[in-house]
Formats: sequence, C-alpha cells, structure tokens
Amino acid sequence: MRDPVTILTEADLRTLVPLDLAAIDCVEDAFRALATKPVAMPPILRLDIPEYRGEVDVKTAYVPGIDHFAIKISPGFFGNPEIGLPSTNGMMVVLSAQTGLVQALLLDNGYLTDVRTAAAGAVAARHLSRAESATAAILGAGMQAEMQAFALSLVRPVRTFRIWARDPAKAEALSARLAARGFAATACATPETATLGADVIVTTTPATRPILQDAAPGQHITAMGSDAEHKNEVAPALLARATYIADRLSQTRVLGELHHAIAAGAIPADRQFCELGQVIASPAPGRSAPDQITLADLTGTGIQDTAIAALAVTRARAAGAGMSFTV
Amino acid sequence: MRDPVTILTEADLRTLVPLDLAAIDCVEDAFRALATKPVAMPPILRLDIPEYRGEVDVKTAYVPGIDHFAIKISPGFFGNPEIGLPSTNGMMVVLSAQTGLVQALLLDNGYLTDVRTAAAGAVAARHLSRAESATAAILGAGMQAEMQAFALSLVRPVRTFRIWARDPAKAEALSARLAARGFAATACATPETATLGADVIVTTTPATRPILQDAAPGQHITAMGSDAEHKNEVAPALLARATYIADRLSQTRVLGELHHAIAAGAIPADRQFCELGQVIASPAPGRSAPDQITLADLTGTGIQDTAIAALAVTRARAAGAGMSFTV
Repeated sequence: MRDPVTILTEADLRTLVPLDLAAIDCVEDAFRALATKPVAMPPILRLDIPEYRGEVDVKTAYVPGIDHFAIKISPGFFGNPEIGLPSTNGMMVVLSAQTGLVQALLLDNGYLTDVRTAAAGAVAARHLSRAESATAAILGAGMQAEMQAFALSLVRPVRTFRIWARDPAKAEALSARLAARGFAATACATPETATLGADVIVTTTPATRPILQDAAPGQHITAMGSDAEHKNEVAPALLARATYIADRLSQTRVLGELHHAIAAGAIPADRQFCELGQVIASPAPGRSAPDQITLADLTGTGIQDTAIAALAVTRARAAGAGMSFTV
Repeated sequence: MRDPVTILTEADLRTLVPLDLAAIDCVEDAFRALATKPVAMPPILRLDIPEYRGEVDVKTAYVPGIDHFAIKISPGFFGNPEIGLPSTNGMMVVLSAQTGLVQALLLDNGYLTDVRTAAAGAVAARHLSRAESATAAILGAGMQAEMQAFALSLVRPVRTFRIWARDPAKAEALSARLAARGFAATACATPETATLGADVIVTTTPATRPILQDAAPGQHITAMGSDAEHKNEVAPALLARATYIADRLSQTRVLGELHHAIAAGAIPADRQFCELGQVIASPAPGRSAPDQITLADLTGTGIQDTAIAALAVTRARAAGAGMSFTV
C-alpha cells in the first residue's frame, strides 16, 4: 500500500520549521554532503512568461542519506503587486528517494525558501567571518534582510546592525524591527557608512549594478541577492580581491556575482574557486587570516530545498501535523 | 485575495478527463499553438537516483491563450514492482499564467500523462494516416497500447487490431480486452505478422533495440515508446525511408527514434524535419500521397501537459469537483 500524501500549509510550516540553529545545521549538512557525497543536482529549469512579466524556476536535488527529495517551484510575477498580490510565492513537492512516490505537498508560499536562504547566509558566516564578529551591515531592507540579520545573530555574537536600503523609510523600518528584537540597529544614508567598521556585510537587494564597491581587511561579505543573471550587488574589482566562495560554482558562473566579475574581465572565466561545502568539509578553516576579505556568493541551490523540506516532513510526521490525503 | 488551491485525485480526474475526442482536440490545439504562437517550452529537467534505479522528469510549457500552465513531475523507479508499487506515477502542479499562483494540484498518478500521450498518437494518425485506415498493428500490450488503440478508433475507422508483445500472454490479454470493447482483435506471434497489411502501426514498448524493421507503402507509424535516450523501437533504415515528423525536433534529436537514426549514421545530424504542429497548422495535408510511409516520433512534450491540465481545471471548476484549500 502506498502512503498517504501530507499537505502542509504556510501556517503549518511556520510552526514546524522556524529559522533557528537546527535549520542552519540542516542546511550546513546539505552543503557538506554536496562536497562529500554523490549528490545529484541538475541545472535549474526556467520558464519565462514575458507577456505577464513572469518567470518560474524549478530546482531539485537528491542528497544521499536524506530519505526524501524536494522539487521546488518558485514563480516570480513582477506585475502582481499592481493587483495586490505578492510577486513571489511557490511550493515544494516532496518525493520518496526510494520509490519516487509523492509524500508531501508543502504549500509554503516561499516561506521555506526564505528560511533555507537565510540559513545558508548563517552557514557562510559561521565558516568565513571572524569568530568575534559583533557588528554587521545589512544592505537591503526586505524580508530576507531581516531573516539574514537574525540568522547571523545565531552563529556569531553580532548584536549591532547598520542598515542601508535604497528607500530610507524601509531602512528605518527594518532598523526599528531589529531594535524591537533587542538588537542595536541604525539606518544609514549610504552603503559606505553602513559597512564602515562592520565585521560582516550582507547584501540582500535586487540591485542590477554594484552597491558594494569596496571592503576592508577582515570583513566577511555574504552576497545573497544575485539569484538571476541580471542581478549584481558587488563590484567586480572587490570580488577579484576577496577570497571567493561559491555555493555552487556551476551556478555562480552564470547567475551570481562571479558571472558579472567574469563579464567585466576582472576574473578569468576558467578560474577555480572553492565551494561552501568544501570549506565546511575541510579540516582547514575557511578563513586563514584575520585580515582576509572573504566573500560568499549564494545563488540558492536544490540541496537546500531538499534539506529543509525533509526537515519539515520529518517534523510534521512526528507531530501529526497537516492533512493526509489518500490518492 | 488569492484563490484557493483545488486538489484533484486520480479518481476525480478519471471522471473529469476521459480519453475522448475533446481530449484529442485539446492536445491538437496545443500542437497547433506550438507551431503558430510564442510558446515557451524549456528543456526537460531530469534527476537521476541510480542508487534506487530512479529517475524523475519535470516538464513544463506556457501556451499563449491557455490561462494556466502545468509543471509535471514524472518519477520512474524501476525497483518499485519488487515491493508491490507501480514503477511510474507522478502529479501536476497547475499555476496561473497571469500571476504564477498555484491553482490546482492534480494527484493523478500519471493518468493525465496516459491520456495526453494517447491523444497525441490520435492527433498524429488524424493528420498522417490514410483517411480510410481500418486495420492497426499495436506493438506492445501495456496500458498505453490499449489507450492508443482506443484513441486511434476515435479518429479513424479502425475496427481491427493485431497485437504483438514480447510476452505472448500479454498480447492475448490486450486482444481480449479490445475484443470486449467491440473490436476485432488478434494476438500475433511476430511484429512482422502483426504489421502485415496494417494501415497504421503504433509502437508502444520499452524496447531498446528496433522491433519494427520495415514498413509497406501507405502505412503510417506512430512511435510512442522512445521517451528516453536508451529506448529505440524503429530501425534507422526505416526511419530514413519514411516521411519523418517529430513532436518536438529538439527533443527527438536527443531522446527519440531520430536520435538513434542519427547515431547509426542513417540520417545526418543537422537534417531538418517538420514538427507535428506544423503539419496541423499547414493548409497542406501531412500525407501527400497514398503510398507514402509516414512516421510520427512522439517523445512527449510539456505543451500536452499544460493543455490537458488546463482542461482538467476548467472542467473541475465547472463541476465544483475536488477539494479546495486556502493557503
């Protein structure tokens, strides 16, 4: 007999999978597997619907040792806000890695993507930033900016945030939200004032031209925003100067900050770099000197989706959460 | 406010979308659109899990004029029968083409794929076989063989079937099932005896070496089985001699019978051929002479999934079928 299908809503998933150390560890384990096990992660499937300013990405990965794998559907329809709908949403289908049978439908409207994306930022900071990091600059003031700030505070003693966003009102609002969570937070007028003296810099904007021009010795940069060809947050010259780490090199060469640095001629197209999973799996630390500038280029990978979805399904089963459906 | 998500089970979908002329017309319209409109159909996403003899294909397409698009997940896990489970199953996620919001989850276990695949065979026969076709050879005796036979009978006056399968007992069983539906049907000992004198030949086996070596003037062949690189039902020399029509040339060059004919050197890799949609859209008939041998190489396309899924959702809404879910 085949198992029933479990349906979990966004509300279920927000309860089952909060952004916490367990979520960060789960994503870290997936990156470690990517470097050490025969993971299968095909290129992203991408459908464009220019007629409605829409695009859909489908990501998947099989991680040996995880009983399930997720197929994640991420639509972005950029005319939606004009009719009162969010531009991004999506869901995940979770299948058994042994039988291919559908096990669960995670109707998360993109919530799990937010969690696994923030978790990846924290994983990068845990392996690349200085251990005593106390101050972070957050460039961007959306949902992901707030989640990145909070995730960072779970892995480093960061209690002070400096926020810059193109819209100063949004930077002020995020600053107020972080202050309400007990952090010292201030909005800054320029990226330069925000990043001056910060130990960690997180870029999480939809910028299409570099907003981060330079960095100081010892700073760690997590670049989160570049998940599509046209997005670019970091100046090619800075990228060339930093110790560069990709989430997945085959992706960052075509989607990430690396792609723009190659296009600008700042980095040869065939230069090899470490991936985050290799840094995690290696006995050597990702940061070898306190004055090194490290930069993690995170474009988002299917292993993160599979890892967070498997966590959600395991917890849902243990809790008897969601609705079951016999098909 | 966003719409609720409708969940339809296999039982719902078997009632809502039977294999009939409407399903065939729906698939024909999608092929016509592929030739005449700016359809978006990215390459198939494919994940392999060799550890469990598993593979998953994800197909999608946007067809201008259809309000929805489907993302279809088709797993094939070939160790499943050993534990009492079907090797193939799957589901479709249906999204709004205007907003990208999930509209419906079609938990069909592959049923809609069976329907749209059989419908494509009927579309090919309607445009390529002789109008007076009365006898068909069916090579293969599975579920798709029976559906192809029935679909063919809806578009051509075919009332006589000759069945060959590698397992003679299965050929006998299909023959009995077709006889029970009112057709004249006989099981044959070899592909040659089955195809001798047939007007239409449908190949629907998992063969990895050609089972159809030759054809006679006037015969139409629909090759259905070759939906993966290693599958091959038609001899390259026959393919080179026939008027060849692809469902999607970019796919048949890598997955279909064409792929094997190119590999065998029987056809140059860069030779151009018509696609089924062009035949449908063209005022000229697909068959220009009664003694022509025509061959449709059908590997399965995302437009068929989008078309049949949209039909299912439209009918479900009209009937108030399925379960609605607010997410």
